[in-house]
Amino acid sequence: MTSSSSGAQARRATILDVAAAAGVSRQTVTRAMNDMPGISAGTRERVQRLAAELGYSPSRFAKGLVQGARTSLGLAIPDLTNPYFPAFASSVVEEATQRGWNVVVDDFGHGSGSGLDAVARLEPQVDALVGYLGAASNDAQTLMGRRPVVVLDYPLGHAAGAISFDYPYAARLALGQLLAAGRRHIAYLDSDHDGAVSTRGLAVAAAAEEAGVELVVLQAAADSAPSAREVVRIKVERQRGVDGLLVFNDLMAAGALKGLHDAGWKVPEDCAVIGMDGIALGELVTPELTTLSLDLRAVGRAAVDLVDNLLSGAVEGRSPDASLVLKHRLVLRQSA
Amino acid sequence: MTSSSSGAQARRATILDVAAAAGVSRQTVTRAMNDMPGISAGTRERVQRLAAELGYSPSRFAKGLVQGARTSLGLAIPDLTNPYFPAFASSVVEEATQRGWNVVVDDFGHGSGSGLDAVARLEPQVDALVGYLGAASNDAQTLMGRRPVVVLDYPLGHAAGAISFDYPYAARLALGQLLAAGRRHIAYLDSDHDGAVSTRGLAVAAAAEEAGVELVVLQAAADSAPSAREVVRIKVERQRGVDGLLVFNDLMAAGALKGLHDAGWKVPEDCAVIGMDGIALGELVTPELTTLSLDLRAVGRAAVDLVDNLLSGAVEGRSPDASLVLKHRLVLRQSA
Repeated sequence: MTSSSSGAQARRATILDVAAAAGVSRQTVTRAMNDMPGISAGTRERVQRLAAELGYSPSRFAKGLVQGARTSLGLAIPDLTNPYFPAFASSVVEEATQRGWNVVVDDFGHGSGSGLDAVARLEPQVDALVGYLGAASNDAQTLMGRRPVVVLDYPLGHAAGAISFDYPYAARLALGQLLAAGRRHIAYLDSDHDGAVSTRGLAVAAAAEEAGVELVVLQAAADSAPSAREVVRIKVERQRGVDGLLVFNDLMAAGALKGLHDAGWKVPEDCAVIGMDGIALGELVTPELTTLSLDLRAVGRAAVDLVDNLLSGAVEGRSPDASLVLKHRLVLRQSA
Repeated sequence: MTSSSSGAQARRATILDVAAAAGVSRQTVTRAMNDMPGISAGTRERVQRLAAELGYSPSRFAKGLVQGARTSLGLAIPDLTNPYFPAFASSVVEEATQRGWNVVVDDFGHGSGSGLDAVARLEPQVDALVGYLGAASNDAQTLMGRRPVVVLDYPLGHAAGAISFDYPYAARLALGQLLAAGRRHIAYLDSDHDGAVSTRGLAVAAAAEEAGVELVVLQAAADSAPSAREVVRIKVERQRGVDGLLVFNDLMAAGALKGLHDAGWKVPEDCAVIGMDGIALGELVTPELTTLSLDLRAVGRAAVDLVDNLLSGAVEGRSPDASLVLKHRLVLRQSA
């Protein structure tokens, strides 16, 4: 097999390159490379020849030819049932697949599952790890040894790389919007993080203090829509003056909108609501959710790029270049 | 290492068994088994001793001790951004994890991705495959050879196993509900399945004919909420008489509710809406969505059980026992 690309830095040819060169669909390339029926002998030969020229090997061949040549990326996420996480996972899978990598996804949010369990399951199978690992971030790097771990939404610590979010900036954006709309009695709804205050919560509290706003903090039992709905329905009655509500994430904000509706409040007239994440759900609720939005495609790309750069040595682990900070933008819809 | 469980049929001890026996958390078991800091030497020894007695080996040890002892399940899903699929994936991951299996998730719904690409990527890594593979279902079994493939929502064909849904039953349930509420001008909204009518669509058409209802069929360009919203907003104006709407799935139904609202229609007064799937989203939209609901925990369990039985030989591939049919139930909320 010859290859038109050479050198360690050259991008591996993907199935898309072969499909484009042969002027056929991905499915036809797969059929040709796996000696499957449904295509002509001529097409099969032409695709196989182009694949050889471009240096493309599908995984089942690559496995036999060059053990370990295909990068395997582990992705640890805490809960597939919060739509933020599958949207993030989808973005990482898309970016990684374009590089010809495999992605092994581990959803550890079942019962008492912890991020560390996920890392222990993924570690024997992967070359690098990306994840929302929370307090397990440091231990994850210990388990992975010299292979890079990129943690999301958590300080760099021992991990080789980190992608975090500028919550002080996001909190100021959201509070600024509420204050500009004349809201003065502002509440923040978070979930119970084992008794601790979340990084987002700290940023909101600091921004409120900076703006001279006395912040009411509400806490839901769980990071879920029904839990947010329940706490808002019950507690908002005792907080008659509240006219603006910031919520930890969009899923809980959707629950909060329902809770306010249950209590007979109109949004945004009686109380404006701002969520955080920017998931598609925000456009399906009524009123549509104003939110601090992340570009999830950009987050996935940043995570996969960082892994790539750590693996190639272009970025050194735990160096300033290995710690990226992304910003939210405020998407104005109907709820605030 | 001794084991208190023996025989090929005995359930493998899991991390939960060890945690329960030692009276510690899963995280502590992981720390003990991986010689990590943060626990006492006494706890470490006690956990390791109990793990040995119970025959529990975490993956990183199992890998070294018994190559291939841990079952690896591939899961191919077409789109993580439709909340139905992550909810289904989450259920499969939970069931498989309880058996001590690994799950490799492949989301092939990006751009021109096909189920066959997913199978080609997963095939070298897994002992069995579960997936929403559509037209690639038969080729999937060819690629996997003797290892079982369980296809969802597709006829058995060449696959070892299949889980399908009783759409004629579901369609009769939904139409019955609309007719009982006095609705007479009923439409069905589907997406474009490469020009073909979906199995769900065929079942709805048959149930309508059975009930003597003339069915209006609307078709959205894509299986997405914005696409459903657009087609409903535009087409519903030309279908003034429509007073009941069945929708292909809940995600599209959420878009349809928005489209009716855009057009100034009240739900359910002007038009009742019924979705299909039963995902959590249905409780967050306004009005809350009446839907034909699947118990996704049961679907995940059925899929993993079937794989287990095919792997052990308890069920023979392509036999009547390898083809399961599950039923929806009608969950009444506010939209119909």
